[in-house]
Amino acid sequence: MTISMYQASAPRFVNILNNLSALLDKAQAHCEAKKIDPLVLTSYRLYPDMLPFTRQITIACDNAKGAVARLAGVEVPKHEDVEKTFEELKARIAKTVQFINTIKPAQIDGSEEKDIVLKLRAREVPYKGMQYLLGFAHPNFYFHVVTAYNILRHNGVELGKADYIGTP
Amino acid sequence: MTISMYQASAPRFVNILNNLSALLDKAQAHCEAKKIDPLVLTSYRLYPDMLPFTRQITIACDNAKGAVARLAGVEVPKHEDVEKTFEELKARIAKTVQFINTIKPAQIDGSEEKDIVLKLRAREVPYKGMQYLLGFAHPNFYFHVVTAYNILRHNGVELGKADYIGTP
Repeated sequence: MTISMYQASAPRFVNILNNLSALLDKAQAHCEAKKIDPLVLTSYRLYPDMLPFTRQITIACDNAKGAVARLAGVEVPKHEDVEKTFEELKARIAKTVQFINTIKPAQIDGSEEKDIVLKLRAREVPYKGMQYLLGFAHPNFYFHVVTAYNILRHNGVELGKADYIGTP
Repeated sequence: MTISMYQASAPRFVNILNNLSALLDKAQAHCEAKKIDPLVLTSYRLYPDMLPFTRQITIACDNAKGAVARLAGVEVPKHEDVEKTFEELKARIAKTVQFINTIKPAQIDGSEEKDIVLKLRAREVPYKGMQYLLGFAHPNFYFHVVTAYNILRHNGVELGKADYIGTP
Protein backbone atom coordinates (compact mmCIF):
# COMPACT_ATOMS: atom_id res chain seq x y z
CA MET A 1 0.00 0.00 0.00
CA THR A 2 1.10 3.54 -0.70
CA ILE A 3 -0.53 6.96 -0.98
CA SER A 4 -2.42 7.62 -4.20
CA MET A 5 -2.28 11.03 -5.86
CA TYR A 6 -6.02 11.33 -5.26
CA GLN A 7 -5.71 10.60 -1.54
CA ALA A 8 -3.03 13.29 -1.19
CA SER A 9 -5.05 15.90 -3.08
CA ALA A 10 -8.84 16.13 -3.49
CA PRO A 11 -10.05 14.91 -0.06
CA ARG A 12 -7.30 16.87 1.70
CA PHE A 13 -8.27 20.12 0.02
CA VAL A 14 -11.97 19.48 0.62
CA ASN A 15 -11.42 18.76 4.31
CA ILE A 16 -9.50 21.98 4.93
CA LEU A 17 -11.83 24.06 2.73
CA ASN A 18 -14.80 22.90 4.77
CA ASN A 19 -12.95 23.81 7.95
CA LEU A 20 -12.15 27.19 6.41
CA SER A 21 -15.83 27.75 5.70
CA ALA A 22 -16.58 27.06 9.38
CA LEU A 23 -13.92 29.65 10.34
CA LEU A 24 -15.83 32.19 8.25
CA ASP A 25 -19.01 31.33 10.16
CA LYS A 26 -17.23 32.10 13.41
CA ALA A 27 -15.83 35.34 11.98
CA GLN A 28 -19.27 36.38 10.85
CA ALA A 29 -20.80 35.61 14.27
CA HIS A 30 -17.97 37.60 15.88
CA CYS A 31 -18.80 40.63 13.72
CA GLU A 32 -22.47 40.39 14.61
CA ALA A 33 -21.78 40.02 18.34
CA LYS A 34 -19.30 42.92 18.41
CA LYS A 35 -21.17 45.15 15.93
CA ILE A 36 -18.19 45.18 13.58
CA ASP A 37 -18.65 45.88 9.87
CA PRO A 38 -17.72 42.50 8.32
CA LEU A 39 -16.03 44.31 5.41
CA VAL A 40 -13.42 45.60 7.85
CA LEU A 41 -12.37 41.99 8.44
CA THR A 42 -12.76 40.71 4.88
CA SER A 43 -10.60 43.55 3.53
CA TYR A 44 -7.98 43.31 6.31
CA ARG A 45 -4.29 42.79 5.47
CA LEU A 46 -1.55 41.83 7.92
CA TYR A 47 0.72 44.37 6.20
CA PRO A 48 0.01 46.99 3.54
CA ASP A 49 1.66 45.04 0.72
CA MET A 50 0.12 41.71 1.70
CA LEU A 51 -3.13 40.55 0.10
CA PRO A 52 -6.43 41.16 1.91
CA PHE A 53 -8.47 38.43 3.56
CA THR A 54 -10.77 38.03 0.53
CA ARG A 55 -7.82 37.19 -1.73
CA GLN A 56 -6.34 34.74 0.79
CA ILE A 57 -9.59 32.80 0.50
CA THR A 58 -9.92 33.01 -3.28
CA ILE A 59 -6.29 32.05 -3.86
CA ALA A 60 -6.63 29.07 -1.50
CA CYS A 61 -9.70 28.02 -3.52
CA ASP A 62 -7.92 28.56 -6.85
CA ASN A 63 -4.95 26.59 -5.70
CA ALA A 64 -7.11 23.63 -4.67
CA LYS A 65 -9.23 23.55 -7.82
CA GLY A 66 -6.18 24.25 -10.00
CA ALA A 67 -4.22 21.37 -8.50
CA VAL A 68 -7.08 18.91 -8.81
CA ALA A 69 -7.94 20.00 -12.37
CA ARG A 70 -4.32 19.97 -13.58
CA LEU A 71 -3.62 16.56 -12.12
CA ALA A 72 -6.86 15.20 -13.59
CA GLY A 73 -6.11 16.83 -16.94
CA VAL A 74 -9.37 18.75 -17.13
CA GLU A 75 -9.77 22.47 -17.73
CA VAL A 76 -9.39 24.62 -14.61
CA PRO A 77 -12.80 26.23 -14.02
CA LYS A 78 -12.61 30.03 -13.98
CA HIS A 79 -14.07 31.70 -10.90
CA GLU A 80 -14.01 35.51 -10.98
CA ASP A 81 -12.66 37.26 -7.90
CA VAL A 82 -15.61 39.42 -6.94
CA GLU A 83 -16.27 38.30 -3.35
CA LYS A 84 -16.46 40.88 -0.58
CA THR A 85 -18.68 39.43 2.15
CA PHE A 86 -18.36 36.31 4.29
CA GLU A 87 -21.46 34.88 2.54
CA GLU A 88 -19.86 35.40 -0.87
CA LEU A 89 -16.58 33.88 0.29
CA LYS A 90 -18.42 30.88 1.69
CA ALA A 91 -20.20 30.47 -1.65
CA ARG A 92 -16.80 30.59 -3.41
CA ILE A 93 -15.50 27.84 -1.13
CA ALA A 94 -18.65 25.77 -1.69
CA LYS A 95 -18.31 26.16 -5.48
CA THR A 96 -14.68 25.02 -5.24
CA VAL A 97 -15.57 21.98 -3.13
CA GLN A 98 -18.38 21.15 -5.54
CA PHE A 99 -15.97 21.16 -8.49
CA ILE A 100 -13.37 19.06 -6.67
CA ASN A 101 -16.05 16.52 -5.79
CA THR A 102 -16.84 15.99 -9.48
CA ILE A 103 -13.34 14.55 -10.01
CA LYS A 104 -13.05 10.79 -9.59
CA PRO A 105 -9.99 9.12 -8.03
CA ALA A 106 -9.19 7.37 -11.33
CA GLN A 107 -8.81 10.75 -13.04
CA ILE A 108 -6.02 11.81 -10.67
CA ASP A 109 -4.38 8.52 -9.78
CA GLY A 110 -1.25 7.79 -11.76
CA SER A 111 -0.41 11.49 -12.29
CA GLU A 112 2.85 11.33 -10.28
CA GLU A 113 5.03 11.87 -13.36
CA LYS A 114 2.58 13.98 -15.33
CA ASP A 115 4.06 17.17 -16.81
CA ILE A 116 2.47 20.23 -15.25
CA VAL A 117 3.49 23.69 -16.44
CA LEU A 118 2.56 26.54 -14.13
CA LYS A 119 2.34 30.10 -15.38
CA LEU A 120 3.70 32.18 -12.50
CA ARG A 121 3.54 35.82 -13.52
CA ALA A 122 5.94 36.18 -16.47
CA ARG A 123 7.59 32.77 -16.35
CA GLU A 124 6.54 29.18 -16.93
CA VAL A 125 7.65 26.61 -14.37
CA PRO A 126 7.66 22.91 -15.28
CA TYR A 127 6.84 20.32 -12.62
CA LYS A 128 6.13 16.61 -12.45
CA GLY A 129 2.76 15.76 -10.87
CA MET A 130 3.96 14.58 -7.47
CA GLN A 131 6.53 17.35 -7.12
CA TYR A 132 3.85 19.89 -8.04
CA LEU A 133 1.34 18.48 -5.55
CA LEU A 134 3.63 17.99 -2.56
CA GLY A 135 6.14 20.76 -3.22
CA PHE A 136 3.96 23.54 -4.59
CA ALA A 137 0.21 22.97 -4.29
CA HIS A 138 0.21 21.81 -0.65
CA PRO A 139 2.44 24.55 0.81
CA ASN A 140 0.74 27.21 -1.32
CA PHE A 141 -2.75 26.10 -0.33
CA TYR A 142 -1.91 25.95 3.37
CA PHE A 143 -0.15 29.32 3.12
CA HIS A 144 -3.34 31.14 2.16
CA VAL A 145 -5.63 29.22 4.52
CA VAL A 146 -3.33 29.87 7.49
CA THR A 147 -2.87 33.52 6.54
CA ALA A 148 -6.66 33.89 6.49
CA TYR A 149 -6.78 32.23 9.92
CA ASN A 150 -4.07 34.57 11.21
CA ILE A 151 -5.92 37.64 9.94
CA LEU A 152 -9.00 36.56 11.90
CA ARG A 153 -7.04 35.73 15.05
CA HIS A 154 -5.09 38.99 14.83
CA ASN A 155 -8.44 40.77 14.82
CA GLY A 156 -9.73 39.00 17.90
CA VAL A 157 -11.93 36.30 16.38
CA GLU A 158 -11.91 33.37 18.80
CA LEU A 159 -10.57 30.40 16.85
CA GLY A 160 -8.33 27.53 17.77
CA LYS A 161 -5.96 25.44 15.68
CA ALA A 162 -8.42 22.54 16.02
CA ASP A 163 -10.97 24.56 14.01
CA TYR A 164 -8.46 24.66 11.17
CA ILE A 165 -7.27 21.06 11.32
CA GLY A 166 -10.68 19.56 12.10
CA THR A 167 -11.16 15.82 11.98
CA PRO A 168 -8.81 14.43 9.34
CA MET B 1 3.76 4.43 -9.33
CA THR B 2 2.32 6.12 -6.28
CA ILE B 3 3.55 8.36 -3.48
CA SER B 4 5.52 6.66 -0.73
CA MET B 5 5.07 7.66 2.89
CA TYR B 6 8.72 8.75 2.90
CA GLN B 7 8.30 10.99 -0.15
CA ALA B 8 5.31 12.70 1.45
CA SER B 9 7.10 13.28 4.75
CA ALA B 10 10.84 13.59 5.42
CA PRO B 11 12.02 15.45 2.27
CA ARG B 12 8.96 17.73 2.38
CA PHE B 13 9.62 18.75 5.96
CA VAL B 14 13.34 19.21 5.29
CA ASN B 15 12.68 21.39 2.25
CA ILE B 16 10.38 23.76 4.12
CA LEU B 17 12.55 23.78 7.25
CA ASN B 18 15.54 24.88 5.18
CA ASN B 19 13.42 27.62 3.62
CA LEU B 20 12.31 28.62 7.11
CA SER B 21 15.93 28.91 8.18
CA ALA B 22 16.56 31.25 5.24
CA LEU B 23 13.57 33.36 6.37
CA LEU B 24 15.27 33.73 9.74
CA ASP B 25 18.43 34.96 8.00
CA LYS B 26 16.39 37.66 6.28
CA ALA B 27 14.70 38.59 9.55
CA GLN B 28 18.06 38.85 11.27
CA ALA B 29 19.47 41.02 8.48
CA HIS B 30 16.36 43.21 8.71
CA CYS B 31 16.92 43.73 12.45
CA GLU B 32 20.55 44.66 11.86
CA ALA B 33 19.70 47.08 9.05
CA LYS B 34 16.90 48.76 11.00
CA LYS B 35 18.63 48.63 14.40
CA ILE B 36 15.80 46.57 15.87
CA ASP B 37 16.37 44.37 18.90
CA PRO B 38 15.92 40.86 17.41
CA LEU B 39 14.20 39.70 20.61
CA VAL B 40 11.33 42.06 19.78
CA LEU B 41 10.67 39.97 16.68
CA THR B 42 11.39 36.54 18.13
CA SER B 43 8.99 37.18 21.04
CA TYR B 44 6.29 38.76 18.86
CA ARG B 45 2.73 37.37 18.85
CA LEU B 46 -0.02 38.21 16.34
CA TYR B 47 -2.47 38.35 19.25
CA PRO B 48 -1.93 38.22 23.02
CA ASP B 49 -3.19 34.64 23.38
CA MET B 50 -1.32 33.33 20.34
CA LEU B 51 2.12 31.78 20.73
CA PRO B 52 5.22 33.89 20.13
CA PHE B 53 7.49 33.54 17.11
CA THR B 54 9.96 31.31 18.99
CA ARG B 55 7.25 28.76 19.75
CA GLN B 56 5.95 28.80 16.16
CA ILE B 57 9.42 27.68 15.09
CA THR B 58 9.92 25.09 17.79
CA ILE B 59 6.45 23.57 17.29
CA ALA B 60 7.02 23.38 13.52
CA CYS B 61 10.28 21.55 14.27
CA ASP B 62 8.64 19.24 16.80
CA ASN B 63 5.87 18.43 14.41
CA ALA B 64 8.30 17.48 11.65
CA LYS B 65 10.57 15.36 13.83
CA GLY B 66 7.58 13.85 15.64
CA ALA B 67 5.91 12.82 12.40
CA VAL B 68 9.04 11.29 10.96
CA ALA B 69 9.95 9.49 14.20
CA ARG B 70 6.45 8.15 14.80
CA LEU B 71 6.07 6.88 11.26
CA ALA B 72 9.51 5.28 11.42
CA GLY B 73 8.75 3.77 14.83
CA VAL B 74 11.76 5.32 16.55
CA GLU B 75 11.76 7.39 19.71
CA VAL B 76 10.96 11.07 19.17
CA PRO B 77 14.12 12.99 20.16
CA LYS B 78 13.49 15.51 22.93
CA HIS B 79 14.58 19.07 22.16
CA GLU B 80 14.07 21.51 25.02
CA ASP B 81 12.36 24.81 24.18
CA VAL B 82 14.99 27.29 25.29
CA GLU B 83 15.57 29.29 22.08
CA LYS B 84 15.33 33.07 22.15
CA THR B 85 17.55 34.39 19.33
CA PHE B 86 17.51 33.84 15.59
CA GLU B 87 20.82 31.96 15.87
CA GLU B 88 19.36 29.61 18.47
CA LEU B 89 16.23 29.07 16.40
CA LYS B 90 18.33 28.32 13.33
CA ALA B 91 20.32 25.79 15.36
CA ARG B 92 17.03 24.18 16.47
CA ILE B 93 15.94 23.89 12.83
CA ALA B 94 19.34 22.48 11.85
CA LYS B 95 19.15 19.90 14.67
CA THR B 96 15.68 18.88 13.47
CA VAL B 97 16.81 18.52 9.86
CA GLN B 98 19.81 16.52 11.01
CA PHE B 99 17.58 14.08 12.87
CA ILE B 100 15.15 13.71 9.96
CA ASN B 101 18.06 12.99 7.63
CA THR B 102 19.10 10.01 9.77
CA ILE B 103 15.83 8.25 8.87
CA LYS B 104 15.96 6.02 5.78
CA PRO B 105 13.05 5.71 3.34
CA ALA B 106 12.63 2.02 4.22
CA GLN B 107 11.94 2.95 7.86
CA ILE B 108 8.93 5.07 6.90
CA ASP B 109 7.65 3.35 3.78
CA GLY B 110 4.72 1.05 4.42
CA SER B 111 3.49 2.99 7.45
CA GLU B 112 0.17 4.00 5.82
CA GLU B 113 -1.90 1.83 8.17
CA LYS B 114 0.38 2.06 11.18
CA ASP B 115 -1.38 2.91 14.44
CA ILE B 116 -0.25 6.28 15.74
CA VAL B 117 -1.61 7.56 19.04
CA LEU B 118 -1.14 11.27 19.65
CA LYS B 119 -1.27 12.74 23.13
CA LEU B 120 -3.02 16.09 22.66
CA ARG B 121 -3.24 17.76 26.05
CA ALA B 122 -5.53 15.55 28.15
CA ARG B 123 -6.76 13.16 25.47
CA GLU B 124 -5.26 10.49 23.25
CA VAL B 125 -6.19 10.55 19.57
CA PRO B 126 -5.71 7.42 17.47
CA TYR B 127 -4.72 7.76 13.81
CA LYS B 128 -3.60 5.53 10.99
CA GLY B 129 -0.23 6.52 9.48
CA MET B 130 -1.45 8.11 6.26
CA GLN B 131 -4.35 9.90 7.94
CA TYR B 132 -1.94 11.20 10.57
CA LEU B 133 0.59 12.41 8.00
CA LEU B 134 -1.78 14.03 5.50
CA GLY B 135 -4.56 15.10 7.84
CA PHE B 136 -2.67 16.16 10.94
CA ALA B 137 1.11 16.46 10.52
CA HIS B 138 1.05 18.39 7.22
CA PRO B 139 -1.55 21.01 8.15
CA ASN B 140 -0.08 21.40 11.64
CA PHE B 141 3.47 21.81 10.33
CA TYR B 142 2.46 24.35 7.70
CA PHE B 143 0.34 26.18 10.26
CA HIS B 144 3.33 27.07 12.41
CA VAL B 145 5.70 27.81 9.53
CA VAL B 146 3.18 30.16 7.89
CA THR B 147 2.35 31.82 11.21
CA ALA B 148 6.07 32.48 11.71
CA TYR B 149 6.20 33.92 8.17
CA ASN B 150 3.17 36.11 8.89
CA ILE B 151 4.71 37.43 12.11
CA LEU B 152 7.79 38.53 10.16
CA ARG B 153 5.78 40.08 7.32
CA HIS B 154 3.47 41.85 9.78
CA ASN B 155 6.59 43.43 11.28
CA GLY B 156 7.90 44.65 7.96
CA VAL B 157 10.49 42.00 7.10
CA GLU B 158 10.69 41.84 3.31
CA LEU B 159 9.81 38.28 2.38
CA GLY B 160 7.88 36.78 -0.50
CA LYS B 161 5.89 33.57 -0.75
CA ALA B 162 8.64 32.19 -2.98
CA ASP B 163 11.05 32.35 -0.01
CA TYR B 164 8.70 30.01 1.84
CA ILE B 165 7.94 27.60 -0.98
CA GLY B 166 11.45 27.60 -2.44
CA THR B 167 12.36 25.07 -5.09
CA PRO B 168 10.31 21.96 -4.46
